[in-house]
Amino acid sequence: MKNSTAQPGDLVEVHLSKKIYEGILLQSSESEKGIVLLKLGSGYNIGFNQKDVLEIKTKRKAKEQKKEERIEHDMKKPSIGMIITGGTIASKLDAKTGGVDPLTSTEEFFRFYPELFEKVNVLKIETPFMKASEDMDYKDWQKIARIAEKMLNDSNIKGIIITHGTDTLHYTSSVLSFFLRDLNKPVVLTYSQRSIDRASSDANMNLQCSALAAISDIAEVMLVGHASSNDDFCYAMPGDKVRKLHTSKRDAFKIINSKPFAKIFPDRIEILREHKVRSKNKVKTDLKFEEKVALVKLYPGQSPEILDFYLKKKYKGIVLEVMGLGHVITKGENSWIKKLKEVQEKGIVVCATAQCINGRLEGYVYSNGRKLLETGVIFLEDMLSETALVKLGWVLGHKDWDVKEKMLD
Amino acid sequence: MKNSTAQPGDLVEVHLSKKIYEGILLQSSESEKGIVLLKLGSGYNIGFNQKDVLEIKTKRKAKEQKKEERIEHDMKKPSIGMIITGGTIASKLDAKTGGVDPLTSTEEFFRFYPELFEKVNVLKIETPFMKASEDMDYKDWQKIARIAEKMLNDSNIKGIIITHGTDTLHYTSSVLSFFLRDLNKPVVLTYSQRSIDRASSDANMNLQCSALAAISDIAEVMLVGHASSNDDFCYAMPGDKVRKLHTSKRDAFKIINSKPFAKIFPDRIEILREHKVRSKNKVKTDLKFEEKVALVKLYPGQSPEILDFYLKKKYKGIVLEVMGLGHVITKGENSWIKKLKEVQEKGIVVCATAQCINGRLEGYVYSNGRKLLETGVIFLEDMLSETALVKLGWVLGHKDWDVKEKMLD
Repeated sequence: MKNSTAQPGDLVEVHLSKKIYEGILLQSSESEKGIVLLKLGSGYNIGFNQKDVLEIKTKRKAKEQKKEERIEHDMKKPSIGMIITGGTIASKLDAKTGGVDPLTSTEEFFRFYPELFEKVNVLKIETPFMKASEDMDYKDWQKIARIAEKMLNDSNIKGIIITHGTDTLHYTSSVLSFFLRDLNKPVVLTYSQRSIDRASSDANMNLQCSALAAISDIAEVMLVGHASSNDDFCYAMPGDKVRKLHTSKRDAFKIINSKPFAKIFPDRIEILREHKVRSKNKVKTDLKFEEKVALVKLYPGQSPEILDFYLKKKYKGIVLEVMGLGHVITKGENSWIKKLKEVQEKGIVVCATAQCINGRLEGYVYSNGRKLLETGVIFLEDMLSETALVKLGWVLGHKDWDVKEKMLD
Repeated sequence: MKNSTAQPGDLVEVHLSKKIYEGILLQSSESEKGIVLLKLGSGYNIGFNQKDVLEIKTKRKAKEQKKEERIEHDMKKPSIGMIITGGTIASKLDAKTGGVDPLTSTEEFFRFYPELFEKVNVLKIETPFMKASEDMDYKDWQKIARIAEKMLNDSNIKGIIITHGTDTLHYTSSVLSFFLRDLNKPVVLTYSQRSIDRASSDANMNLQCSALAAISDIAEVMLVGHASSNDDFCYAMPGDKVRKLHTSKRDAFKIINSKPFAKIFPDRIEILREHKVRSKNKVKTDLKFEEKVALVKLYPGQSPEILDFYLKKKYKGIVLEVMGLGHVITKGENSWIKKLKEVQEKGIVVCATAQCINGRLEGYVYSNGRKLLETGVIFLEDMLSETALVKLGWVLGHKDWDVKEKMLD
């Protein structure tokens, strides 16, 4: 192998006798001595025996860490607020492991996303925590909502962007739809599926489109992200009608049983349907939340005894992800009907959502559906299970509310 | 209203002063006296006050019940076997309730589907039970597999069709892929989302396409059904790579992380990819099944104490529908890591599948993924949760098998 000046983190070409691979050079560990490790554009790591490598050409050096970084303010542009919470969009490749690590500072975050500043002035930035989204819970949602309230009631700020991990982003976008009352301005949640230092990263376009959404007239909680695997445009999707439906694709989030508010290109926005418009309202948070709520997905042959567990653990509400148009096991030794009546009599609220994801529950078509309805279970029509869970937590947080009325509101 | 001779079950036009509605006339109950009830083509029921109705015109009389019905055999056509198990495809509209009731006899089933006999001779028919599929469990799957084995080893039969309810059809098509060893001929599962007496029924085309699949060379367990909402062609989908993804649309089943074997029009079949071909093998069933397996979908903030419940109830295996690329809650008071180690040490096998549905688990990208892998949880790559559950039951039914090796096989 020719001597190479390539360093871990650099974009390189690895030349073999018959093939050339391009990717980010990774640091080999002691146990991998003699191995050249590369992270490919696809995200996969590949290793080569050093003796098979003819040459390593550096295509682009890793960005040098600047000693001091500042966020430049341009008050001629519309101002937005940002809440940074962690996730891949606030992560970078770790050249040592080939994995992905969180960024350590707000300055580092913005160094990666210079295009964001083309259209907007990021006036306020808050970083309540840096978490992988699977580690977030309702207390984190409350923290985000409190900061959002403060920013939205600041007359200098036109809208806000919340960056977030993807795993539970659709839970957060749903719950903010309930927590933020009398919404006056755009609340945009966005993400990336690939960290910014990867060629295929989706972060920059998602942020550029989010900036346009944040200064638009759409006073809704939205999730903004890739509409397809192409880097051409994003959708602004209703926060409570969206679900992560791919582990790795850039267009991981899909609108379910609804339509996008807008199609957003990095340089323009096309409104697609009606929405709430910005106003002089003062946003108020309503952060009450009952944490003893559970989501249970049904499967054939499942024993209903799981309901006893939730009863014993003093759960207040359960979302059942039921089968088909709204069915549970109704006949035989594992029938859920009697047990469902029992736990509801003992005070647990039970709601039903569709494990089909798409479509609407219709309890009256089949006799099994009618039997489930008769137990008192609340059929949540075309509501997503994830939305149902956070809505149920929020509704049950209000002791004097009519649960059924509010859940179907 | 003009006198009308229309009877419940007839297709009628209801004339109001400004609008005409077409649909199936339903029987009004005592409490609905004075109401004209109609089932619309959309499947929804509508009621009219009798005094607003100018006229009810009969467009088509309900089919008369024939006293005696026989299935005609034409031995010049290729012969197939059929297993009828219930579900919407074996149901008809109940003009009394507007709901859907099971057919009562095999003859009645075939009376509704005359087109099926255009291409094939239905030589053997068995009806082990008539169930809504949400009421089926592993014992029913075993019954179906035993009948299938017998039919597939009958040299007069070219292939079989299994008609089935939709709610758990994808579980049955998965488990048959495991139960039927050395498969020699096509095993086709099909369904309908709308009962046959409705104008929009999908049953006839699904059955016609299933007949072509059953006499084809594709010796696989397949689910055959509408490829789109149009009545133009079906897909033959791999039985273990398919999921119900819409509560009511005719193309409710979608292929996940795979491709169709064939595109089937009512009169021809286009093979799209490689598949096992028919052979002289003798099919053997392997019906061992451990019923103490559970499917658990994770959500943010979920307490891991649910695992104690499964431990106490002596479950042998759990499929965890994890978040993102393969993540559970890893930090904070609700971390699942310690508890997952504990239940696995105590003998429960834990597998992970993606709640994103599409895409593949990749545990090495993020540190939370690596921590989950380190507990010993088996990452099932791009396997569907539903397939994973039945496969885990089947694998654990074999006490001497290497579970990890077999699950990833």
